[in-house]
Amino acid sequence: MNTPVGVLLSGSGTNLQALLDAAAEGTSFRIAVVISNRRDAHGLERARQAGVPAVWIPHRGKEREAHEAELVAALREHGAEWVALAGYMRLLKTTLLAAFPQRVLNIHPALLPSFPGTHGQRQAFEYGVRIAGCTLHFVDHGTDTGPIIAQGAVPVLPDDDEDALKARILGLEHELYPRVLRWAVEGRLRIDGRRVHVDLPEGEEAFVWAR
Amino acid sequence: MNTPVGVLLSGSGTNLQALLDAAAEGTSFRIAVVISNRRDAHGLERARQAGVPAVWIPHRGKEREAHEAELVAALREHGAEWVALAGYMRLLKTTLLAAFPQRVLNIHPALLPSFPGTHGQRQAFEYGVRIAGCTLHFVDHGTDTGPIIAQGAVPVLPDDDEDALKARILGLEHELYPRVLRWAVEGRLRIDGRRVHVDLPEGEEAFVWAR
Repeated sequence: MNTPVGVLLSGSGTNLQALLDAAAEGTSFRIAVVISNRRDAHGLERARQAGVPAVWIPHRGKEREAHEAELVAALREHGAEWVALAGYMRLLKTTLLAAFPQRVLNIHPALLPSFPGTHGQRQAFEYGVRIAGCTLHFVDHGTDTGPIIAQGAVPVLPDDDEDALKARILGLEHELYPRVLRWAVEGRLRIDGRRVHVDLPEGEEAFVWAR
Repeated sequence: MNTPVGVLLSGSGTNLQALLDAAAEGTSFRIAVVISNRRDAHGLERARQAGVPAVWIPHRGKEREAHEAELVAALREHGAEWVALAGYMRLLKTTLLAAFPQRVLNIHPALLPSFPGTHGQRQAFEYGVRIAGCTLHFVDHGTDTGPIIAQGAVPVLPDDDEDALKARILGLEHELYPRVLRWAVEGRLRIDGRRVHVDLPEGEEAFVWAR
């Protein structure tokens, strides 16, 4: 039985697509609902194309906790047991995290704790690092501060511009997110303070390097 | 003609050894003097073994700028044109950096800007990152904040303790430091704001990944 997962997003949803593709190929999760705070988020269209309920829950003019209560209601209505953030541009506060304790994941396009917040790739590019990457982590109340599950690293090449770096990192994101979400729903993750222990399947690793 | 370099250190000097070994095998720099603020630093003994002048310049009881003026005098006395920090546990202020503008390099055992300051490996281990590393950078007035020249990345493996991680990172440090110092003395580095452009020799790169 595949575990139902809810995805929250605000944008194009390429990471949602990676999760939908993994689900279509067969894995231990399925995407039960996709929710966006933006009606025009392309991720909602990806959901519809895959036959997944796509829900617009605007945040404008609402108290943050009231908005989150609506998210929780929609997630529960569709039976979601885990929540995967995939480019969701709102900070989460108490209501949603309390409803899904240690069951909310996020992907960030930087090697945390470097470059939290928006535009991680741009921050890395402008700082002049030689190695950039992405991070899968549990969500806590901070901005990209939760316990780290997996990371991927890529070089910043001499001729890169910001878009080239962004695309290279995105390739890793699409590789890591389905892997980590599978570990999550299979009960392979255990949080121990700041560290996350993974009961790794044979031949899998919690890091990846790509050129 | 090999360019004379001065090395500052406070401890065992394994990175000094990597530089001495590279110089012995033949490269475009030579170590002209090794200076320590600690008399018992094993790095001084490594220098003597290699026939390199080893100088103890204590910092206790001296104003910081006065101490740095002594460092500058010793570096100049031995003809140093570049300065390589190799585990030098004092912050540099105006005097030394003004005497060697954009000619002071440092190695830090973390993927900066993550985990600056002391015990970068321990900070990374305790934070729970999956990818750690080291950074070669120009020294500025901040703590490990100068423009980045090269970085190396390693995974943090499930069975690692802090010492295992430290050793894995050290392997990269010893690989990168002689390479970067050679680029420096050969005039291959150009600082452009926060970014460093490297005129890379054929087949060389400003990053490395190792398992």
